[in-house]
Amino acid sequence: MIARQIADAVNQDRLLESIDTLATFGARGDGGVDRPALGERDIEARRFLIDRARALGCSVHVDACANLFFRREGGAALAPVMTGSHIDTQPTGGKLDGCYGVLAGFEVLAALNDANARTRRPLEVAIWTNEEGTRFSPGAMGSSAFVEPSRMARYADVRDSERITLSAALDHHRRAFPGLPQRAQHEAAHAFVELHIEQGPQLEDAGVPLAVVNGIQGVRWYAFHVQGTAAHAGTTPMPLRRDAMTLAIALRQELDAIAHELGRADTRVTFGRWSIEPNSINTIPSAVSFTIDFRHPDASVLAAFDEHAHAIAQRHGARIEALFTHAPVAFDASVLACIDEACRALDARTLHLTSGAFHDAMYLATHCPSGMIFVPSIDGISHNPAEATDAGHLVLGARALAHCLTTLCND
Amino acid sequence: MIARQIADAVNQDRLLESIDTLATFGARGDGGVDRPALGERDIEARRFLIDRARALGCSVHVDACANLFFRREGGAALAPVMTGSHIDTQPTGGKLDGCYGVLAGFEVLAALNDANARTRRPLEVAIWTNEEGTRFSPGAMGSSAFVEPSRMARYADVRDSERITLSAALDHHRRAFPGLPQRAQHEAAHAFVELHIEQGPQLEDAGVPLAVVNGIQGVRWYAFHVQGTAAHAGTTPMPLRRDAMTLAIALRQELDAIAHELGRADTRVTFGRWSIEPNSINTIPSAVSFTIDFRHPDASVLAAFDEHAHAIAQRHGARIEALFTHAPVAFDASVLACIDEACRALDARTLHLTSGAFHDAMYLATHCPSGMIFVPSIDGISHNPAEATDAGHLVLGARALAHCLTTLCND
Repeated sequence: MIARQIADAVNQDRLLESIDTLATFGARGDGGVDRPALGERDIEARRFLIDRARALGCSVHVDACANLFFRREGGAALAPVMTGSHIDTQPTGGKLDGCYGVLAGFEVLAALNDANARTRRPLEVAIWTNEEGTRFSPGAMGSSAFVEPSRMARYADVRDSERITLSAALDHHRRAFPGLPQRAQHEAAHAFVELHIEQGPQLEDAGVPLAVVNGIQGVRWYAFHVQGTAAHAGTTPMPLRRDAMTLAIALRQELDAIAHELGRADTRVTFGRWSIEPNSINTIPSAVSFTIDFRHPDASVLAAFDEHAHAIAQRHGARIEALFTHAPVAFDASVLACIDEACRALDARTLHLTSGAFHDAMYLATHCPSGMIFVPSIDGISHNPAEATDAGHLVLGARALAHCLTTLCND
Repeated sequence: MIARQIADAVNQDRLLESIDTLATFGARGDGGVDRPALGERDIEARRFLIDRARALGCSVHVDACANLFFRREGGAALAPVMTGSHIDTQPTGGKLDGCYGVLAGFEVLAALNDANARTRRPLEVAIWTNEEGTRFSPGAMGSSAFVEPSRMARYADVRDSERITLSAALDHHRRAFPGLPQRAQHEAAHAFVELHIEQGPQLEDAGVPLAVVNGIQGVRWYAFHVQGTAAHAGTTPMPLRRDAMTLAIALRQELDAIAHELGRADTRVTFGRWSIEPNSINTIPSAVSFTIDFRHPDASVLAAFDEHAHAIAQRHGARIEALFTHAPVAFDASVLACIDEACRALDARTLHLTSGAFHDAMYLATHCPSGMIFVPSIDGISHNPAEATDAGHLVLGARALAHCLTTLCND
């Protein structure tokens, strides 16, 4: 069977070497990578991959958000199958987040070439611009603009910390790669599969090498603002105090309890950012703000939490501020079945899990049938120079991707 | 009786006017005062008070820490009775903290003059340098150096936020007031009485105009450092998290409970300063530090709390750092009796309470029999432009001070 043949043609050394090579663009002294979207190091990394794609016989296209598309033609005039991820990194990023998915896509292109395979459908490997959102906010700009091009009008004026607009950064990218043809805007893909590191501990914890990702959790971000009264730590009797931190902690504990009650084992709730006024050792806190990041795969749980959060804030006399919301994404059943089949064919055990992190596939899912594969992250660590995955797992993930993409390309 | 006569000679208009006049040196637009120790505005305020003291027939002396002593001679060659406080303020200070005690001392000097009274002992009104500790740390530098002159060697090199040493600020003060005679270093005082605003709500709460201050609470300051593990808010299942803020809150609640259990109604416990790493909305907190300010009048309670705090820190795997400690101060029974007698003579109801704030009297108590009188603070507010006390209470406090000082001066 051709899918198994392509999976077997995946070359471990070539894959691992490509990961190390890409990591030289923006390499940090500590083994990590610092490669902001559309910066000089990103441009050089893109140049390296464009050259490599051309050497593999692929055409290279670009779109309005500098997403790059490396296309291996198929035998029929059909919609392409897509894969890919991003190559921008966090400032203290690792070698794998995003890059692994792009380079595994390249490895599939190479494996298809090695096997002299001709698929029915074209295969496209994409690099989505500015997924991390570290240089320009929000993240996943490239993939969200790809599926909804009208977003570009809003994104164009977004500025980085040096006041450079996205628009100027895109001009710079155009000048770096003059003459790159534009991708046909309205060519809908047949399917999209993104391979990624888990960035969490579940696979490692279960001792399982691959995950079939059912979907992406929805998220609600809020800030809570609690008012107290500043007063002298020595002179104010306890019963007369209005300590904003005491009030904030009571609010946090109640929000935490309701998040667990509503969401059960699927709840992810984090109170990550705190601001305390006046933040003085001998003054009772007068004002506290804190954030909550609540994630869950079930939209009705997110909506119920939203109601409770407002009620709890009101009961505590706190101000609630909704900062961000994203609905849960359920990936396509037929794509997931195809991933399952690939893993079975390779005798790889799998977990089915829901991604807690956002990925470009979150937006692609609104464009075409999509799915994701995860490989384990050692100690669950990501966004960190220590980010790592066993070589065997990296190769197995790429083989599963090759199997699945080949199957989809021959649909 | 002479003491009552001097108390009756206290002039309300003169006292209130002097408070408003002193507040013009460093007046803020919001009605508050900003007068850092030994800065230009403090120097001008001192010049105003030196001139006023000389007009009242007093001699003016200075010591190595720029404490000023305004002395009205007595009839016998006996140790003086002292009163006074400080005139430096917090950056957003009010008109009364410290200044009230100094100006009430001046009012007693004037009342004695008005009554043509000659006391047995001299009366000295002191201005203690840098009580607030806002410009130079620690606070109460002047009074602590007065009672223990060897401290000056340590204080001399302390720098303010503009890198100016205390030593340089003292030189500047010397140049501003050339030829001021030094106070005889070893003249121990007969007694010290400090009149101050309460800076807390207890008198107002009880509807009582004066407090006889039994002593000053002891204090222990600690920082606790809690370590967790930073991880992705979306990808990390709850049971696998080590959230430093969750750990810190558990520690805080346990410390709070033991503080109340040990100290009962006299406990003052404040968790005022917090630092959260990385303080990001979608990252689990990796490290939290927070401070505790625990105050109690009983040294054995402070010591028991210290033991428990270390044990609790150890049990939670937290690091505890002792930042500051000061033993409780009990004021002198005979001075307190004299204050009580003054309040009775004026038909003023009193509370006996323990000061939660530090005052210069804390150090003077190691030098001579000492005591304090408090007047109410409206809404308990201090260190704030809104700091205020009813005029009637300000006058009553000055009258009680006059009564008590006159009695002590005739001991």
